[in-house]
Amino acid sequence: MEPDLQLYSVRTDLALEAKEMAQGPQRTPIPGVNEEVEESEGIKVTRLGVANAAGSQAIGRAIGNYVTLEVPALRGGDTGLQQKVAEVFAREFEDFLTRIGIGKEASVLIVGLGNWNVTPDSLGPLVVENALITRQFYELVPDQVSPGYRKVSAIAPGVLGLTGIESSEVVQGIVDRTKPDLIIAIDALASRSLERINTTIQIADIGIHPGSGIGNKRRGLTQEILGVPCVAIGVPTVCYASTIVNNVLEMMKNHFGQGAGHTKEIMGMLDDISEQERLSLVKEVLEPLGHDLIVTPKEIDEFIEGIANIVASGLNAALHDAVDPENVGAYTH
Amino acid sequence: MEPDLQLYSVRTDLALEAKEMAQGPQRTPIPGVNEEVEESEGIKVTRLGVANAAGSQAIGRAIGNYVTLEVPALRGGDTGLQQKVAEVFAREFEDFLTRIGIGKEASVLIVGLGNWNVTPDSLGPLVVENALITRQFYELVPDQVSPGYRKVSAIAPGVLGLTGIESSEVVQGIVDRTKPDLIIAIDALASRSLERINTTIQIADIGIHPGSGIGNKRRGLTQEILGVPCVAIGVPTVCYASTIVNNVLEMMKNHFGQGAGHTKEIMGMLDDISEQERLSLVKEVLEPLGHDLIVTPKEIDEFIEGIANIVASGLNAALHDAVDPENVGAYTH
Amino acid sequence: MEPDLQLYSVRTDLALEAKEMAQGPQRTPIPGVNEEVEESEGIKVTRLGVANAAGSQAIGRAIGNYVTLEVPALRGGDTGLQQKVAEVFAREFEDFLTRIGIGKEASVLIVGLGNWNVTPDSLGPLVVENALITRQFYELVPDQVSPGYRKVSAIAPGVLGLTGIESSEVVQGIVDRTKPDLIIAIDALASRSLERINTTIQIADIGIHPGSGIGNKRRGLTQEILGVPCVAIGVPTVCYASTIVNNVLEMMKNHFGQGAGHTKEIMGMLDDISEQERLSLVKEVLEPLGHDLIVTPKEIDEFIEGIANIVASGLNAALHDAVDPENVGAYTH
Amino acid sequence: MEPDLQLYSVRTDLALEAKEMAQGPQRTPIPGVNEEVEESEGIKVTRLGVANAAGSQAIGRAIGNYVTLEVPALRGGDTGLQQKVAEVFAREFEDFLTRIGIGKEASVLIVGLGNWNVTPDSLGPLVVENALITRQFYELVPDQVSPGYRKVSAIAPGVLGLTGIESSEVVQGIVDRTKPDLIIAIDALASRSLERINTTIQIADIGIHPGSGIGNKRRGLTQEILGVPCVAIGVPTVCYASTIVNNVLEMMKNHFGQGAGHTKEIMGMLDDISEQERLSLVKEVLEPLGHDLIVTPKEIDEFIEGIANIVASGLNAALHDAVDPENVGAYTH
Repeated sequence: MEPDLQLYSVRTDLALEAKEMAQGPQRTPIPGVNEEVEESEGIKVTRLGVANAAGSQAIGRAIGNYVTLEVPALRGGDTGLQQKVAEVFAREFEDFLTRIGIGKEASVLIVGLGNWNVTPDSLGPLVVENALITRQFYELVPDQVSPGYRKVSAIAPGVLGLTGIESSEVVQGIVDRTKPDLIIAIDALASRSLERINTTIQIADIGIHPGSGIGNKRRGLTQEILGVPCVAIGVPTVCYASTIVNNVLEMMKNHFGQGAGHTKEIMGMLDDISEQERLSLVKEVLEPLGHDLIVTPKEIDEFIEGIANIVASGLNAALHDAVDPENVGAYTH
Repeated sequence: MEPDLQLYSVRTDLALEAKEMAQGPQRTPIPGVNEEVEESEGIKVTRLGVANAAGSQAIGRAIGNYVTLEVPALRGGDTGLQQKVAEVFAREFEDFLTRIGIGKEASVLIVGLGNWNVTPDSLGPLVVENALITRQFYELVPDQVSPGYRKVSAIAPGVLGLTGIESSEVVQGIVDRTKPDLIIAIDALASRSLERINTTIQIADIGIHPGSGIGNKRRGLTQEILGVPCVAIGVPTVCYASTIVNNVLEMMKNHFGQGAGHTKEIMGMLDDISEQERLSLVKEVLEPLGHDLIVTPKEIDEFIEGIANIVASGLNAALHDAVDPENVGAYTH
Repeated sequence: MEPDLQLYSVRTDLALEAKEMAQGPQRTPIPGVNEEVEESEGIKVTRLGVANAAGSQAIGRAIGNYVTLEVPALRGGDTGLQQKVAEVFAREFEDFLTRIGIGKEASVLIVGLGNWNVTPDSLGPLVVENALITRQFYELVPDQVSPGYRKVSAIAPGVLGLTGIESSEVVQGIVDRTKPDLIIAIDALASRSLERINTTIQIADIGIHPGSGIGNKRRGLTQEILGVPCVAIGVPTVCYASTIVNNVLEMMKNHFGQGAGHTKEIMGMLDDISEQERLSLVKEVLEPLGHDLIVTPKEIDEFIEGIANIVASGLNAALHDAVDPENVGAYTH
Repeated sequence: MEPDLQLYSVRTDLALEAKEMAQGPQRTPIPGVNEEVEESEGIKVTRLGVANAAGSQAIGRAIGNYVTLEVPALRGGDTGLQQKVAEVFAREFEDFLTRIGIGKEASVLIVGLGNWNVTPDSLGPLVVENALITRQFYELVPDQVSPGYRKVSAIAPGVLGLTGIESSEVVQGIVDRTKPDLIIAIDALASRSLERINTTIQIADIGIHPGSGIGNKRRGLTQEILGVPCVAIGVPTVCYASTIVNNVLEMMKNHFGQGAGHTKEIMGMLDDISEQERLSLVKEVLEPLGHDLIVTPKEIDEFIEGIANIVASGLNAALHDAVDPENVGAYTH
C-alpha cells in the first residue's frame, strides 16, 4: 500500500480506542494488556497497563501505563461537573505519579505542545498559561517559599512552522539547563469516536511519540531522548475526517449485515473490498483538502477553554499539596 | 420524513452548488436559470440569474442575481493572489450594485453576521472590523469630507445566544434610526464541496434568508423585512459533516457503478436504499455531536483572516471611488 | 480660558472624587449632598445622594444616587476576595434597584459601552460577554423558563470610530424594538487617584452623560433620551496623565507649605500662578500625545479581566434570584 | 540615596536620550561618543558610536554601535509611511550587520522578549509571529531551498513570572542546541519623551543588558553570556509615570526661569531642592501603584501592531535577499 494512503485510515491517539479496535466487537481480552475500570458520578476511569511486547504489538502502543477519564456530560458545560472532573483528575494524576515512582519533591517542567493560533491545537499552550508556576521563587527567594509547593516551570515551545525549531529541541535545551526531575507534556489529540472529543483526558507515562497528537510532531519527547521521565496528558479535540468516513463504511456493513435479502448480500460484498480500495475511496472524497482535514463541533473555541481549565486546575492541585482539590479553580484565570 | 432528518442531508448555502445538484451529472440546463461564466488568471466568475418561479423552485433559491468568485489557488496563501482577488471582487461588486440600480451616492450599512468567538462563524465581524467607516464624518463635519467617498456605517449585531436579541431586530432598530439606502450583510456559509471552503465568495441581491449561513439565523435580513435593498456577501468556511458523509455514499455509488460483476450489483442495491434510510444512517454516525458538526481545515483561523481581508479590501474599493483598487489592502489592518 | 485647556485639568468620573475635591482637605460637608459610609472586611461602601440643585452644582454631578465600592486589596489578585466583592456588589446592586423602584420582574438590557480593541476601554464589552442572557428563552420557549430568572438581553454597541454610529443611536434602536424596562450601562471610567484604578465600582441612577467615561461618548444614555430608566455601572481603569501632573503640582504646594524658610516662600508663589498658567504648563508637558494620554499599571490586561468578572458575576446574581450569590462565579467564563 | 528611589528618576532605554540628557540643553559634544545624523522624507536616522570607556561612562551605555530611526508622523497611521519606514529600517539593519561584520550567510535566531498578555510588552512576541522562518527547510529539505534566503529561526521565551525560567536560560538552551551565528533580540523599551513612543526604533550591537526593556529582565542576552553576537532591536512603547512627573518639575524650572520677578525667584529655589527631595516627591505621588506605572496612548493596542509589522517586514527584507524591500509587507499578516 502507498504509505500516505495509511493517513486516510482510522486514526486515534487514545490507547483505549486502539485497544477497543484491536479487541473487535466481541471485546476479546488481549494478552499483555490489563484493564481496570471504575465509574462514579458520570466519570469513568479506565486504567490500562500494556505489560509486554505482545500487548504492545497487539494494540500498537508502547509498553506503559495509560489512564483515561471519560465524562460524556462535560459537553453540557456544567460548571459544577467541571469542578468535579478537575478533582478526580487531580487525584488520579497524583496516584499515577506515585505509582510510577515520582516523589512529592520532584521538580517539574510542564511542556504545552501545539500551536496557539490553531484553536483545536491550542490545548497545550492554554494549560501552560493557567499552570501555577513556582520555580522562580525557589531560585530567587528559596527561604520564603511556603511548604506544600514544589518547583514547577512551564514552556510552550511553539511549532516547527512558526519557530523553525523542533519542539523537542527547545525542550531538550531547557532540560539541559534547568534539570527538572519530571516532564509533563500536554498535547491535543485525535480520537476515533466523536463523543470523546473534549470529554476525555488521557494520562500516559510513555511521553510523546513522533506522529502522535494533532500537530506535526516530528520528534518525540520521551525518557530515552530527554533523559528524564516524561508523562503525557492529552485530550482529543478533533476527529480526522478520514476517520469519520471510515466509520460510515464500517457502519454500513453493520447496517446491511443486520438486514435480510439483498441488503445482507451487500454486506458480503462490502467485506470483499480490499482495505486499499477502501482507503482510496476515502482519499478520493477528502482529496481537495487532504488528510489533515478535521471534524470539530462548531463550539470548539469554548470547549477547549473549558477542558484546558480542568487540566490546569487538576495539575495545580496534584502537584502542590497546598492547593486544595476543592478549590482548584481558584488558581486559573 | 421526520423534519430533523433533513438536517442530515447535503446542505449548501451556495446557489451555484444548488444549481449543480439540480442539474445532476449531465449538467442539464434549467429553465428560468441563466448562467454566464468568465475565467481569467485562476479566478472563475459565475453570474447566475434566477429569473422566475420555475427556476427558483428547481434550484430551491429565491429569484434574484448571484455572482460567485471561485479561486482554488487561494488556499496556497499567496499574498499577490489575495490582492488580485480583492481587485476582481471590488470590480464585480461595483458592477453588481450598478446592475441592481444602486447609485454611487447610496449610503450603506454593513452588517457583519455571526459569532466572533466561533472561528468559522467570525467572518462577518472580521469584515466589519476592517471596513472603512465614514458615516461619522458626514454627521459631524459634513463639509470636510473629501469627494470620492460615500456614507458607510457598520455593525456586528452578535448572535441570539450571546445577546438575547435576534440579529435582525438589532439591524432593524439601527435601520429605523440611521436610514441607510442599502444594507450589505456579510455571513459565513456552508458549502457542499470541500474545495470551495475559504476559496469562494458569493454575492446575492436576495439578502439573508432564515436558516442560511452557518449560525442559527432565525429571522432573515431581506428587503421585505427591512424596507431597504439588502445585498448578501458570503464565504463558505465549513462543510457540514453530514454533507461529507452523504458525499461518501454518493461516491460509492459512482465507484461501484463503474466496476463490473458484483460491485456493479452493489450499486443497484445502493440505489434501492430510500433517502430516509440513507439519512438515518448518516444521523446514526453523527449522532453524538449532532447535525451541527462541521468539517474544517486545521488552519481555519489563518484562512478566515485572509479571506476576511480580501472581502473588506474589495468592499472598501467598491464603495469608495477614492480608494484605489490597486491599493485596497492599505485600508485594512 | 480656551475650552480645550480644560481638558488638561484634573478629570474624574467618580462622584465620590468630585465630592472630595469640592470638599477640600477640611472635608467640609456640602449642603444637598448626603453621604453614608459602611466598611467591612476591606470593602468600603459609600452611598452618596445628590438631593438638589445646590448639591449638584457644588460637586458638578447630576441629581441622583451614587454607590461606590472601594476595595484597595483587589490589586493583590486574591481570588477569594474577588468572590467576596462580587457578592457584596450583587447585594448593593439589588438594594439599589429596589431603592429606585425597579421591580424583580423588570426586563433588562445590559449595554457594554467601549471599544474591545482598546484594553482599558474594554470593560463594557467584557461584562456583556459574561452576562447571563435569557431573553431568547422568554421569546422562544416562554413556558419552559424556570422561576427565579428575569428577561435579560445585552449588546456591546461599539464606538463611533469603528461603526460610524453613536452608541446611543444603536441602543435607542434596540430599545424601540425590544422595549426593556431598565437599561444597565457598563463603562470604563477615569479616576483622579491612582489607587482607585481597577479597585473601585460605581453604581449611579443618572445614566451615562456625554463626555463621561474614557471613550469619546458624544451623546448620553439617560432616561430623558431613551425613555427608560438607565443605571450606570462604572470602574475606573485609567487616570489621565494630566490628572497625575496636576496632582504633582498640588503635592508640591503641600510639600513646600509644610517646610519653612524659602520652601514656604515657594508655596506662596505657586499659589499665585493662575489656573490658566498651570494648565498651560500641563498642556506643554503632554502636548506630543495630547490630552487623552493615560496612565495605567502595566498589568492592565489582567486586572480588567478580573474586575469585569466581578461585575458580571455580581450582576448575574443581582438580576436572577436563581443565581446564588455564593456561586456567582459559576456563570462567567 | 535609597536604591529604590532611583527607580523614580527619569528612565530611558534609548541611547539617544541618554546622550541628550548627558549633553544638557547646550548640546555639548561628548568625548568618546560619535554621532551622524541623516534625515529624509520625515525619517531621521541617528548613528551613535560609543567608542571608549569615557564615552560609555558619560552617557551610561555600553561601548558599541546604536542606530535610531525617529518617525514622528508614524502616529498618524499612514500605511504608505509604514511601508517606507520598513524599507529604510531594512536598509539600515542590513548595513548595520555588514558594519559589525555579520555575513549574508550567517544563521539567525530571533528572540522576541516580553509578555504577550501585556499589550505594551508584547512587541517581541508580535515580531516573532510575523518573521519569515526558514530553518526547518534547511534541516528537512536542504536541497530545495531557493537562493536568496538564509537560515532563520525564532522563539518567544515568555517571562519569568509565567514560565519560572529566565528568558536568557531558555535562549541559552536553544543556542546550545541549534548553534545560530547571530541572535537578534526584540524588546519593548521605555523612553524619556512621549513623542518617541511607538515612533522610534533602536538597533544596537550590545545585546540586552539586565534591567533594560520594560519587563523585568533579570539576566541579559549578550555575547559574553551566550557566546554569539547579539543585536538588539527595541521600540519604546511606554514612558514611566515617574519620568513624566520628573519632566514636569524640569519644565517648571524652565518656565519660571524665563519669567521675571518672583517666578524667576522660584526657579532658583527649585534648583535648591536636592535630587533626593525631588525623587521622594515623585515617589509620594506614584506610591499607590509603584514605580512600574506606565503612561501610554489609549490606542496602544493598535500602535503596537503597526510598529511590530514594520519591524518584522524590515527584518524579513534585511535578512533575506529574495524578499524585496518594496514588497516587505507581503510576508507578514
